[in-house]
Amino acid sequence: MAIVVRQDIRMGKGKVAAQVGHASVEASETIRKENNELWKKWIEEGQCKVVLKTNSEEEFRELQLKAKRRGLPVVVIRDRGLTQLDPDTVTCMGIGPGPSKLVDEVTGHLRLL
Amino acid sequence: MAIVVRQDIRMGKGKVAAQVGHASVEASETIRKENNELWKKWIEEGQCKVVLKTNSEEEFRELQLKAKRRGLPVVVIRDRGLTQLDPDTVTCMGIGPGPSKLVDEVTGHLRLL
Repeated sequence: MAIVVRQDIRMGKGKVAAQVGHASVEASETIRKENNELWKKWIEEGQCKVVLKTNSEEEFRELQLKAKRRGLPVVVIRDRGLTQLDPDTVTCMGIGPGPSKLVDEVTGHLRLL
Repeated sequence: MAIVVRQDIRMGKGKVAAQVGHASVEASETIRKENNELWKKWIEEGQCKVVLKTNSEEEFRELQLKAKRRGLPVVVIRDRGLTQLDPDTVTCMGIGPGPSKLVDEVTGHLRLL
């Protein structure tokens, strides 16, 4: 699973961590329902996660489209805006879990957060 | 759900986020299996997460015991130590989801990460 975090909005370390937590659970739940075998494999192999960053909302949207076109599960996390952000701000997205080759095709050029 | 992150070890922002992601999925899975009604409620209400910090391993262990004594689910995350940390380093723990009163009794004095 790759989790892509927006760096063009201001979020503290704890905020980022919570958003990545949301994306992790959402992505896990999605695949648990849609492809239970793949989900079990992902859990058993240590529920691998790579946290990456993007510097623009435009790139974020492109990554989202790319991942969808390859049939990868994509979950987009929006913040309720009770603390640091405006309501409904997109903060991060989970891509996968899925075949490493496909996930790499979409996110391989991004830098680690 | 409260996620308590150790601040006495050095972890980058992305590392912390990934560890919190692990704790989120582990804690969610634990409660999904043990108390499906509570899990559904937690998911439907937006899978609330608060990310907190502790400055010592000793306090971390005390919190773990306190939470267990109150019957709250506790998941402790260890890092495989492939990058920034020694193998098997405890990085964070998930407490709950559970009744806010109980979670607050254990973690209410901690500061946000």
